[in-house]
Amino acid sequence: MTQLRQDPGTREWVIIAAERAKRPKDFTKAPRAAEDLPPTHDPKCPFCPGNEGMTPPEVLAYADGPRQPNGPDWKLRVIPNKFAAVSFGGSQERYLDGMFRSMDGLGSHEVVVETPRHDLSIGTMPVERVQQVLAAYRDRLSALNSDERVSLVTIFRNHGVGAGTSLVHPHSQIVATPVVPLHVRHRLDAWRDYYDDNGSCSLCDMLAAELEAETRVVMQTDHFAVICPFASRSPMETLIIPKAHRATLGTDGEGELADLARVLSTLMGAFHEAMSDPDYNYVVRTAPSEELTADYIHWSVKVVPRLSTPAGFEIGSGMYINATPPEDAAAFLREAIEAKAPTA
Amino acid sequence: MTQLRQDPGTREWVIIAAERAKRPKDFTKAPRAAEDLPPTHDPKCPFCPGNEGMTPPEVLAYADGPRQPNGPDWKLRVIPNKFAAVSFGGSQERYLDGMFRSMDGLGSHEVVVETPRHDLSIGTMPVERVQQVLAAYRDRLSALNSDERVSLVTIFRNHGVGAGTSLVHPHSQIVATPVVPLHVRHRLDAWRDYYDDNGSCSLCDMLAAELEAETRVVMQTDHFAVICPFASRSPMETLIIPKAHRATLGTDGEGELADLARVLSTLMGAFHEAMSDPDYNYVVRTAPSEELTADYIHWSVKVVPRLSTPAGFEIGSGMYINATPPEDAAAFLREAIEAKAPTA
Repeated sequence: MTQLRQDPGTREWVIIAAERAKRPKDFTKAPRAAEDLPPTHDPKCPFCPGNEGMTPPEVLAYADGPRQPNGPDWKLRVIPNKFAAVSFGGSQERYLDGMFRSMDGLGSHEVVVETPRHDLSIGTMPVERVQQVLAAYRDRLSALNSDERVSLVTIFRNHGVGAGTSLVHPHSQIVATPVVPLHVRHRLDAWRDYYDDNGSCSLCDMLAAELEAETRVVMQTDHFAVICPFASRSPMETLIIPKAHRATLGTDGEGELADLARVLSTLMGAFHEAMSDPDYNYVVRTAPSEELTADYIHWSVKVVPRLSTPAGFEIGSGMYINATPPEDAAAFLREAIEAKAPTA
Repeated sequence: MTQLRQDPGTREWVIIAAERAKRPKDFTKAPRAAEDLPPTHDPKCPFCPGNEGMTPPEVLAYADGPRQPNGPDWKLRVIPNKFAAVSFGGSQERYLDGMFRSMDGLGSHEVVVETPRHDLSIGTMPVERVQQVLAAYRDRLSALNSDERVSLVTIFRNHGVGAGTSLVHPHSQIVATPVVPLHVRHRLDAWRDYYDDNGSCSLCDMLAAELEAETRVVMQTDHFAVICPFASRSPMETLIIPKAHRATLGTDGEGELADLARVLSTLMGAFHEAMSDPDYNYVVRTAPSEELTADYIHWSVKVVPRLSTPAGFEIGSGMYINATPPEDAAAFLREAIEAKAPTA
């Protein structure tokens, strides 16, 4: 007998099909041969040092010393996406043509080039580099949230072809949209209803319940807990939850960022080692720009390894079938982190 | 400048990124070499004639003459899925453990083996076979909807590895769940609100507007219209809409089924020919079993070719970036259908 589980936050049902029995090890690819690994520098890569002219002018850059804008010697660059999904310049007006509502593709679409090194990833770069990536998220998030045309900033990372990117060079993306998408609105509505009923934050209460249950906890630090959610939609899904209730990333200073860098580095390192560098997406879920102080919103980072393909059932019903119970996923990740710890 | 468009039914925003300019032809694979095409019969395939013992006993079968149940000489079989996501036998009770709600994986998960031929698909089998597939959908839908444990029946087809199936033999699936998933509920809520406001069906009004606009119409018959929706989430998405307002499939007799068979055969044949057999899902969207007479629900068939990979932005925001304007998709499909017509 399989089990239906309801997400305690959104009330969305998922099917946990343990009978189909996909253990985490079943998803692990063969390790890549040395000659298939990317080089440390690729002269054709638009994100590699020396090719700064191949991208639009930078929005932000971190460097160790003084440098020319758009020159080399950077540690991290943020640039506009050359193939932007949205860009500033249009109008905020909605156009209504009979039943059909549209608006200009207003907003911004930026790329965070995370390091000059072509071959690294979040799980393999030094933890200081990860912290710098998070600092860039915080800085751009803050800047974009203060633009009155922006309603929501979505920060995400696509790793590997199966996760929707063909660019190897380590990068994240930041998209600012002029609307709060319905999917996000539904989650916020559910959280607000919970807050109105219980006088507490849904994610705070869920975190407390997960820490109490223990079986789905992957790791904990002073500031963060990593869990495989009770109603995970897909195998090995993990959620990084800040223990302090806040609506958005980066409002707690460097201590929190440094701790999140260690957590991300450890978690993504464990995926990299134990599952041979799986394709994945992660997304930083923060509050819409007009609700940065809302009591019912709690930011988090959701990590989704791309190990299964949603099919017609998921497209039709929106209900996911997950063949890997989150309890198994969490046990596997705990073990992977432990195995790596002595050499870290 | 890209464009944001809102689905007139659900109010979901999508980004139509025509600047990224993926024309339908850009997605077309190279045709498969003759030696890579599947054989007409595969002795190892559990769905091929002669291997009836490899599957659970059939739920329904169509044949031209008398035959032994679970013997050969069938034209179509419906069997329980050996790896069922849900199955009857559990309880309808909800279990609440603190914040965590669950229930038994109650329901049914069936496979429609569409034809004895191993190598055909909806776009290549004779139209009479397609009509038989639709008759099986109708018969099982009606039987499952009358089971009081069932809340929603989802009928879908996965074609190709990229669409989530590794089984080549032509088949569809029918899943009956004991809950109405949130995703479906949200659409129904939006339609009901529209009905309350306007006194008319949202999809009826949208269809009238699309027929008036013409640019996104692919084809029309007496009973159906095929459109590429104004706010398509992914490239080449199409929607088959019955012109008569009804909440569910198969309540209008054989005339409607025969017409839908012609439409599906033509549309999927055009995809097969003009895009070299793309991977796709389709899903029959019908009313929940307790709302079969609801005035605000209008059934349809959604076809989603799997030509792009949703990435972190889509996972995080639920908002899709579609690089192929539906107007281009519809023009391409109209041309493909016209090109095929003389030889059909």
